[in-house]
Amino acid sequence: MNAPNAPGATIDRDRQRALARALRTVLPRRGLLYREEDTRPYECDALTLHRRLPMLVALPETGEQVRRVLRICHERGVPVVPRGAGTGLSGGCTPLPDGVLLSTAKLNRVLRIDPLARTATVEPGVRNLAISEAAAPHGLHYAPDPSSQIACTIAGNVAENAGGVHCLKYGLTVHNVLRVRGLTMDGEVVEFGSEALDAPGLDLLALVIGSEGMLAVITEVTVKLLPTPQFARCVMASFGDVVTAGHAVAEIIGAGLIPAGLEMMDQSATRMVEPFVHAGYDLDAAAILLVEADGTPEEVEDQIAQVTAVLRRAGATRVAVSESEAERLRFWAGRKAAFPSAGRVSPAYYCMDGTIPRKRLGEMLLAIQEMERKYGLRCPNVFHAGDGNLHPLILFDDSDPGQIARAEAFGVEILELSVTLGGTITGEHGVGLEKIMQMCNQFTPQELERLRAIKRAFDPSGLLNPDKAIPSLHRCAEYGRMKVVGGKLPFPELERF
Amino acid sequence: MNAPNAPGATIDRDRQRALARALRTVLPRRGLLYREEDTRPYECDALTLHRRLPMLVALPETGEQVRRVLRICHERGVPVVPRGAGTGLSGGCTPLPDGVLLSTAKLNRVLRIDPLARTATVEPGVRNLAISEAAAPHGLHYAPDPSSQIACTIAGNVAENAGGVHCLKYGLTVHNVLRVRGLTMDGEVVEFGSEALDAPGLDLLALVIGSEGMLAVITEVTVKLLPTPQFARCVMASFGDVVTAGHAVAEIIGAGLIPAGLEMMDQSATRMVEPFVHAGYDLDAAAILLVEADGTPEEVEDQIAQVTAVLRRAGATRVAVSESEAERLRFWAGRKAAFPSAGRVSPAYYCMDGTIPRKRLGEMLLAIQEMERKYGLRCPNVFHAGDGNLHPLILFDDSDPGQIARAEAFGVEILELSVTLGGTITGEHGVGLEKIMQMCNQFTPQELERLRAIKRAFDPSGLLNPDKAIPSLHRCAEYGRMKVVGGKLPFPELERF
Repeated sequence: MNAPNAPGATIDRDRQRALARALRTVLPRRGLLYREEDTRPYECDALTLHRRLPMLVALPETGEQVRRVLRICHERGVPVVPRGAGTGLSGGCTPLPDGVLLSTAKLNRVLRIDPLARTATVEPGVRNLAISEAAAPHGLHYAPDPSSQIACTIAGNVAENAGGVHCLKYGLTVHNVLRVRGLTMDGEVVEFGSEALDAPGLDLLALVIGSEGMLAVITEVTVKLLPTPQFARCVMASFGDVVTAGHAVAEIIGAGLIPAGLEMMDQSATRMVEPFVHAGYDLDAAAILLVEADGTPEEVEDQIAQVTAVLRRAGATRVAVSESEAERLRFWAGRKAAFPSAGRVSPAYYCMDGTIPRKRLGEMLLAIQEMERKYGLRCPNVFHAGDGNLHPLILFDDSDPGQIARAEAFGVEILELSVTLGGTITGEHGVGLEKIMQMCNQFTPQELERLRAIKRAFDPSGLLNPDKAIPSLHRCAEYGRMKVVGGKLPFPELERF
Repeated sequence: MNAPNAPGATIDRDRQRALARALRTVLPRRGLLYREEDTRPYECDALTLHRRLPMLVALPETGEQVRRVLRICHERGVPVVPRGAGTGLSGGCTPLPDGVLLSTAKLNRVLRIDPLARTATVEPGVRNLAISEAAAPHGLHYAPDPSSQIACTIAGNVAENAGGVHCLKYGLTVHNVLRVRGLTMDGEVVEFGSEALDAPGLDLLALVIGSEGMLAVITEVTVKLLPTPQFARCVMASFGDVVTAGHAVAEIIGAGLIPAGLEMMDQSATRMVEPFVHAGYDLDAAAILLVEADGTPEEVEDQIAQVTAVLRRAGATRVAVSESEAERLRFWAGRKAAFPSAGRVSPAYYCMDGTIPRKRLGEMLLAIQEMERKYGLRCPNVFHAGDGNLHPLILFDDSDPGQIARAEAFGVEILELSVTLGGTITGEHGVGLEKIMQMCNQFTPQELERLRAIKRAFDPSGLLNPDKAIPSLHRCAEYGRMKVVGGKLPFPELERF
């Protein structure tokens, strides 16, 4: 299984030509790309450490075209990797050199907004933010807001079970999708969920959400719409040490408060961001929390009063509340600019995504400080603290192979510690290629075999996004051995960089 | 497959004795029942139309005992049917005459309440209400509230994905459970979900919730706890016709309001209930709505004002708001007493459970009125209207075989109309034995085959609750033929009653 995944694998030109001839009959004129200059933009998603050229790129414009592409590939045994906007962070749509990269970005119509039922039905390539824009005239919006929401598509959100700053209060993608329609690898229409609250039989809707393109190619999604809050205010609180800040997060949730956003940044992150954004962060604080309340003005005032009381009791050294919409947006600007700020101070950064129980946030931050020393790399931390989702940003120089290796090992240690602390190796970015080997830490061989059996129930051919998310036992065994000898990278192909 | 399910099937005494000898070695003294007078109470759940004596009843007291019982049954190829409190309405734990009925009711300890993380970890046999009682000192409660909540167990709730009056605002079981631990048929420990918000790999947590005891025997559940609302008030609104009442429900939701409860009763239901409970219902109204607001006093006043405005605009002929906690409880008393009231006016009733899109509630009610004439049976309606979940109560005389047959056919027609209206054959009671044939209407053979493949991934032996929820294609084909000849019952075994 390693060879076809390797970045250097070459494309079989005869196979490519034969397949192109077949696909041309079912795709529109500009719907098929095969020249290297055309396929190059599809070589990776936002996990740019993994790059592979696809044999062909198919850009269908209708569900029927998707179905025909799948049928042709299925008949010929050609693997297919579905792709939305390519903003994923875990390599979920990294192509295969012997496969078709199937983009659903051109299926981008909003089919229906039903303001009474508060639902939107859209094609897979509709952008996350475009749903909220289409619903805005009705005072409604689609709640999950990954930071890539300007660009990312709803089908990609469904495939990765995307989150965002507001998912603490409003839930992940899985909590906001009612129905998913798709096609299996052999071109059969499948429908998951319904517009009713419950469904008979096994609950396959949650199964497809977060399935990383392995079960079906999504062709239509019905999402819930929520009323757009009238008003919002944000609290910024400073703490003298990270453990106290971590406990304050647990205290807020423990007090029965569910803020619209509850984010944490450590000093390393605020100091990185502040010169870039001038958000007004307290740079003397070891960590700051941003806590947002939204709703009617009365609800917001009530929640702000409760939140500030809890924060003071929990040991905040300074508490500031946004006094205007401009100030609120400035508080958030720093958080939202964390990734570009990292790009400004470091040649490269590696954004991790683990999840741990809230009450162990402080412990994790202390451990990451230890790891900074051990690996000789800086690691500012921005957390979706309210739901225990970590985004440590490991800064490194990607022109230095030693630093690449240390950054990778640093990342692996964070993920493995997440599991040890009772958490998981992914929060909202998925497993993809990036964390496939950590799946061997998270699951037993029996558990992995069950996941594979479920994939087989939908894709007996094993042709749909075959090398993502669920490792083979062979790969786990190999990884296990590598762990024993120590110091090796979790991604064998990286050694060739 | 029909023979072993038939109510008259006899128990193989030699097999029973041999198995009892093996199980006695791993169970406590009173943990094994085999005399008919002891096993008789386990012959059915609350779907009393289906009764079968189990070969043996096992009552383990620890997870380890559950595991040993499973291993013994697995080795000997003996089917196992798990059971909670037996309050299920769809026959999900109807026993098998050649199988073991495995009750987890004696595993009933609350293991942990974590008020900061707002979670409770409990054994499978803990009663729904006992969780809220254990959490009450912290001002917390477990939200899903099936009407059997005094008796039903959390594992049964998980197996059936139970709902309740408050699930419109607070969600079904699937929205309130974080982690489920269980044992597969061959005794392997399996864990679904985690205390973190997201999990890597396929989302199996939702898969096990509502899996009706077919994938694993549940041994531990971690649920979310919510702050207990400070205050609640209830609006009762009258309508001159059912279609207007149905539209009012859609208008409330369309206005962005999510009441804590949104129930509908038609005139037939209010007139049945009122003499029994004296709830003060408007008996001249064709239908009434009960709309509850909860939260802080300010939130409640705000929502009550909005709800009453929408109800008046939507054509309510009378709107009353509870002026005291006693009055609020009286409004609900009628709704909650609907089932016992049906038992008071009719020798028997059959509680249906379909779900349809909210905006089609009026249409469904008119169709049910037609069916009342067609089948010559009365059918009062109580609906969890806010989420489109119907509970028509078909009244019949169970000493009259003709009426039994008509009641069954009436029920089937309601379920099939639910599917036609874009809904599903189950809301919150599960499929079990009751609706297994309607699964053939809801799903294609390919879809059913996929559900079975998922069951096989967890239970390759097919011994765990084998004849529930997912029909074999053979049974569907048989049912299809029966439908063609017309007038036959969906449950072949009922013909022998």
